[in-house]
Amino acid sequence: MINFMNDYNSPGHPDIIKAVADAAREKYPGYGTDAASERARNRIKALLGAGGDADVHFLAGGTQANVTAVSAFLRPHEAVIAADSAHINVHETGGIEAAGHKILLAGGGSDTAGAQVAVSGASGAGKPGVESGAQGSGSGASGAGKPGVGSGAPGTGSGRSGAGKLTAEGVRHICAVHADEHMVKPRLVYISQSTELGGVYTLRELNDLRAVCDEYGLLLYLDGARLAAALVSRVNDAQLGDIAALCDAFYIGGTKNGLLFGEALVIVNDLLKEDFRYLQKQRGGLLAKGFLLGLQFDALFENGLFFTVAGHADAMAERLRSGLEGLGCRFLVNSRTNQIFPIIRTEAVERLASLFLFETWSRVDEHYSSIRFVTSWNTTEDEVDALIEAYGSLER
Amino acid sequence: MINFMNDYNSPGHPDIIKAVADAAREKYPGYGTDAASERARNRIKALLGAGGDADVHFLAGGTQANVTAVSAFLRPHEAVIAADSAHINVHETGGIEAAGHKILLAGGGSDTAGAQVAVSGASGAGKPGVESGAQGSGSGASGAGKPGVGSGAPGTGSGRSGAGKLTAEGVRHICAVHADEHMVKPRLVYISQSTELGGVYTLRELNDLRAVCDEYGLLLYLDGARLAAALVSRVNDAQLGDIAALCDAFYIGGTKNGLLFGEALVIVNDLLKEDFRYLQKQRGGLLAKGFLLGLQFDALFENGLFFTVAGHADAMAERLRSGLEGLGCRFLVNSRTNQIFPIIRTEAVERLASLFLFETWSRVDEHYSSIRFVTSWNTTEDEVDALIEAYGSLER
Amino acid sequence: MINFMNDYNSPGHPDIIKAVADAAREKYPGYGTDAASERARNRIKALLGAGGDADVHFLAGGTQANVTAVSAFLRPHEAVIAADSAHINVHETGGIEAAGHKILLAGGGSDTAGAQVAVSGASGAGKPGVESGAQGSGSGASGAGKPGVGSGAPGTGSGRSGAGKLTAEGVRHICAVHADEHMVKPRLVYISQSTELGGVYTLRELNDLRAVCDEYGLLLYLDGARLAAALVSRVNDAQLGDIAALCDAFYIGGTKNGLLFGEALVIVNDLLKEDFRYLQKQRGGLLAKGFLLGLQFDALFENGLFFTVAGHADAMAERLRSGLEGLGCRFLVNSRTNQIFPIIRTEAVERLASLFLFETWSRVDEHYSSIRFVTSWNTTEDEVDALIEAYGSLER
Amino acid sequence: MINFMNDYNSPGHPDIIKAVADAAREKYPGYGTDAASERARNRIKALLGAGGDADVHFLAGGTQANVTAVSAFLRPHEAVIAADSAHINVHETGGIEAAGHKILLAGGGSDTAGAQVAVSGASGAGKPGVESGAQGSGSGASGAGKPGVGSGAPGTGSGRSGAGKLTAEGVRHICAVHADEHMVKPRLVYISQSTELGGVYTLRELNDLRAVCDEYGLLLYLDGARLAAALVSRVNDAQLGDIAALCDAFYIGGTKNGLLFGEALVIVNDLLKEDFRYLQKQRGGLLAKGFLLGLQFDALFENGLFFTVAGHADAMAERLRSGLEGLGCRFLVNSRTNQIFPIIRTEAVERLASLFLFETWSRVDEHYSSIRFVTSWNTTEDEVDALIEAYGSLER
Repeated sequence: MINFMNDYNSPGHPDIIKAVADAAREKYPGYGTDAASERARNRIKALLGAGGDADVHFLAGGTQANVTAVSAFLRPHEAVIAADSAHINVHETGGIEAAGHKILLAGGGSDTAGAQVAVSGASGAGKPGVESGAQGSGSGASGAGKPGVGSGAPGTGSGRSGAGKLTAEGVRHICAVHADEHMVKPRLVYISQSTELGGVYTLRELNDLRAVCDEYGLLLYLDGARLAAALVSRVNDAQLGDIAALCDAFYIGGTKNGLLFGEALVIVNDLLKEDFRYLQKQRGGLLAKGFLLGLQFDALFENGLFFTVAGHADAMAERLRSGLEGLGCRFLVNSRTNQIFPIIRTEAVERLASLFLFETWSRVDEHYSSIRFVTSWNTTEDEVDALIEAYGSLER
Repeated sequence: MINFMNDYNSPGHPDIIKAVADAAREKYPGYGTDAASERARNRIKALLGAGGDADVHFLAGGTQANVTAVSAFLRPHEAVIAADSAHINVHETGGIEAAGHKILLAGGGSDTAGAQVAVSGASGAGKPGVESGAQGSGSGASGAGKPGVGSGAPGTGSGRSGAGKLTAEGVRHICAVHADEHMVKPRLVYISQSTELGGVYTLRELNDLRAVCDEYGLLLYLDGARLAAALVSRVNDAQLGDIAALCDAFYIGGTKNGLLFGEALVIVNDLLKEDFRYLQKQRGGLLAKGFLLGLQFDALFENGLFFTVAGHADAMAERLRSGLEGLGCRFLVNSRTNQIFPIIRTEAVERLASLFLFETWSRVDEHYSSIRFVTSWNTTEDEVDALIEAYGSLER
Repeated sequence: MINFMNDYNSPGHPDIIKAVADAAREKYPGYGTDAASERARNRIKALLGAGGDADVHFLAGGTQANVTAVSAFLRPHEAVIAADSAHINVHETGGIEAAGHKILLAGGGSDTAGAQVAVSGASGAGKPGVESGAQGSGSGASGAGKPGVGSGAPGTGSGRSGAGKLTAEGVRHICAVHADEHMVKPRLVYISQSTELGGVYTLRELNDLRAVCDEYGLLLYLDGARLAAALVSRVNDAQLGDIAALCDAFYIGGTKNGLLFGEALVIVNDLLKEDFRYLQKQRGGLLAKGFLLGLQFDALFENGLFFTVAGHADAMAERLRSGLEGLGCRFLVNSRTNQIFPIIRTEAVERLASLFLFETWSRVDEHYSSIRFVTSWNTTEDEVDALIEAYGSLER
Repeated sequence: MINFMNDYNSPGHPDIIKAVADAAREKYPGYGTDAASERARNRIKALLGAGGDADVHFLAGGTQANVTAVSAFLRPHEAVIAADSAHINVHETGGIEAAGHKILLAGGGSDTAGAQVAVSGASGAGKPGVESGAQGSGSGASGAGKPGVGSGAPGTGSGRSGAGKLTAEGVRHICAVHADEHMVKPRLVYISQSTELGGVYTLRELNDLRAVCDEYGLLLYLDGARLAAALVSRVNDAQLGDIAALCDAFYIGGTKNGLLFGEALVIVNDLLKEDFRYLQKQRGGLLAKGFLLGLQFDALFENGLFFTVAGHADAMAERLRSGLEGLGCRFLVNSRTNQIFPIIRTEAVERLASLFLFETWSRVDEHYSSIRFVTSWNTTEDEVDALIEAYGSLER
């Protein structure tokens, strides 16, 4: 069955696997102290501009990267600020809390809303599937969300500007009400680029977040599980160097961008660098065969494969989005990365699911639901076209 | 200055202190293994009806009791369900999360809303201070909240029925969306009786919560920091025996009801009893001089002082509430326990604060704020009358 | 039955209780922000000499003080160095580990040895009960332990110099072997003054420990549950000012020195001061009625009661030690504080236990056992003399 | 340089890598729910005999497997019993303690001794390098250690029978002294097969450990990072079915036996199975591309590659051991698995290190040191012979 379920459903890009296979019998020192890892770290640092004296550590997966980094950076009473749709809030089984830290949610939604982010927001939208069309469309709106869709009415101080994006205003509100030692102390702002809903923070939005972080003494941490898809998005204006200049730490996702597995954590802020390898080892995140990560990231950044892979994924998503839109389809959010969220009649979901693999996202209203299609380096034009055609049949 | 700040602003009821002082030179075995502690435990168990084979443990304070109990009962991936105004969510510096457990919030508010629970809810109320008048007034409404005040519009599935109360519907919604191992597993429902807003769960509401707990395999835990004030409230219909029959565990607050310090944790569910003293000791909650708690609780329950003390506190609050109401005052919630929340003109807050100690609670709208008055065994009629009179002068 | 079980078997010194009782109806701000607490903090700081700008926090008990302080000071990968007989290692139910930190044990013993510290050490002593006679006897030996008794043969690099004391050499050895990120990073040295075996660190020993801490970048933390008993001991030469000058943090025990309950944590090192109240609150250690601690410590330090109380306890122990020694009794260690450890024939233990309450400590050899007698402000000369007489009868 | 540093210095066995590479473009469901993972689980279960209804979970590395399993199985006050040389005690940066659990060490050594296990033990051996010759040599001794070498004198109740093995007696001693709630509660016995020193528990030793576990209500957990090397060892008499019958849980190491990475955790005890995937996810140990682990383990167990790979490693170690022994070399322990520990003159270590990569293990006495050679599927006879020859030159 044609698979649009996610971007980690295939082992890895053949060029990556070849790099590993060619080295099968080579011998390396352990735990990332090898030359391949060093080469990979240097390739990444070369892309960071002024942030090039950052520390780079390789980890096996995103949840591991998030919990290891966040818990390494915080004292026990310090809390994380995040959107309610944040991956760490919804889909990491409470890993951050298990490490001892409260997540303070910006946005009107409780964290259960995070699991089905659009339900309530969309309920007052009058018409289902009012696509925002905002981001990158020249309308000047900064977020992908439009009134009534995605994340509640804008301007309500919800802390989310749409498409799962956290706003500086939302951060400021949380800091204002956490004033004494009877409450946790907000200390780290967590954002995802691209977001869990496919949104992309603009450079201006990132600057605003940095400013509020400076105002309140907060760290800015960016979960880049799908950073590549954001960097090559047509609506993106923040490059890796900007990310490095604005964030205290972030990770560059490999698992969802062609690697077998692996994420590259970049620690820019000198104050956060000390003893990170201890924390990594303690949490089981210092791979004995660290060179496996080095070999992969070295190949990923050697000839721009990192951008090629993501470019293909985004192009496939754009082809799909455009095709569906041409058939009158509306979307939950206006994502221009490799995840799109069409709204279809609820009764049609099951029929489509008999032909394609995808995730059912949320109920939009009485008659409509949103679903999620994800593309990757391993998605073909034929697969996309087959899906567009099937959608066309459904709606006839 | 006359002090309505809280119910823990004096050392303790003279009868309690006398019990300790009289024993100054006696000698006891340590860690709660003494005869006074045993007597105190038996007095409490005698009030529990069918729950009388419960285990009773004494702890020094409420935050300690909550975090020790909750962390003793849960595995690392199991989460707590609570109202966003819950003490554990707002005012325990993330103690539950520090012990590794996520708190899932029922109600539309994020946890920052919990810190200022009424702000958004009241914003659509049109008129400030629309007092609900519901609870105990014969109107048949089960909660203290009225549309627009206290906790958002009723019937919106907010998970709170007003006055900081969690609803069975709110619990059910959270359980429904937490379906697999990528999310935490809801396991324990936390409620406070009386609530942080002075509300009292009716027996019917408690039965409904028990039913949803049974449906989803959840534990029901009741924070009784102000349980005495609820038990003697004119709107209460759930006795200690009911609490013991419906909850898996709960604690009976002493600190806010006349003791120097101390809470009595009652573990009813046999499955939660094992090795509790280990957990208590590990968290620094097994007092070396456990007999100090035994002596106090023994005195508290010997001649009904527990109820007398709370009765006086509630009566003083009722006298104050009634007096203010007679002068046209409106309230944030219709509390009938020892905390009341008048709504006054914001510009008058400071003036009143120059004469009395109290807590400013929240902005209600552009012109009005809510404040909190708390009474105790050590509040006098004269103090109450002076406050009523001062309020009268203010509003003239 | 006459009780030599411990020094926390009575509610509290009458002068302390009177201070609380007299204030029963007074009203105070909460959480230690009251004037009595401030007075008490100032009285303590006045005794610290150059360390007088320390922060002082009051906590309810020793285990709570230890775990709150240690976990506030350390990052997750940082470890504690302690003697195997350390209270945190043996008798706090793994509280330090529950807070996430490994305890590295100096000394040859495993932590089970810590529970029965003298068993193996004494087994090669040839004669049971070879009392060391070292400390304070003019022999110039720095520790209370003598070859074969207490802590294994000296000079073996065991890390303990006797009587439960940690040596600088033991600390150095641990630091030397913990060299990379695959192992925890030693960061805090924990010592007790007086020790769990009644020993007293000399000023020279403390200076040596400070020097090794400086050498390896370690914090020095002193558990002063029985600090008063050490300060007034005839073998002591380190005053409170010395302690403050040498330690990064320490606590002054109240529970075992006449208070109802309470310990005063002194944080000298500026780098450790930040946000401590958050940590205290998060762990349930910020008492709502903090003024209860303030009232007690204020009274304790007002007229030197702190020293009077401990002086009496030590004097009673000395009277007992001297009396028993006159009857030929030998001791496990040469303690000159309020805990002494006579060695008696194992068959006599039960007989003595029918007349007096005390703790059986350890088997010394096939025929002999050590037991522990503890004195307090509430021990009388008559009780001591009765015990001496009973011992005399036993040995006849 | 010829590399005897460890058994994880090469990417992976070509057959394993081929299995992954061939599937590069296939699409799979995530998180181990794929068919390849199911096949791999079934292949493993088929080897477990009566334990075949076990749950099998795949994790990325050994430290991750240990900390995830142990913390999933224990309540906060429950402790682990282990040898002081245990990997979890020495080389996992306190991961078990970071998860909240104390490790109780059997054996006379402190945990610093664990880092250099033989130092003190060997110091009294008179002659360096007294090889025990015990295990598998027909002498009937159960352990690889001989008096004075490896782990202190046998029969001293040290809790280790040699070669890093824990004894039932050692477990019993710890349980006996941990008697009440002031101490942690021993609950899980951790052993490694083969041990960190290359030792192999006999079936009889495993039965004895099971018996003491049953006596005290303990869980038996086996760290099988090098289980394959033990299973194929000439001195082994415990098969996978025995392991499954005797242990509550264990893991089968892949990283050190030919896989790119991966360990298979087997949970035999039904009581430990519930919700394990939640814990795995929470700790970042549920790989998104779980099928990578499935594909590898499927290939590993398809045609007995698991045993072939380990067989080659052990054979190379045996060839090396035998060759060195023929030249008069003595060994720290008598290991018959893929790690051997020759004792050579300290002054020769550096010279040898200029030709070969290996780990320097410990000082044995004034003149001698032990070093470690590890073999793997990727060690050749030529490499072994070159090392033997070099050793011969050294000693001439």
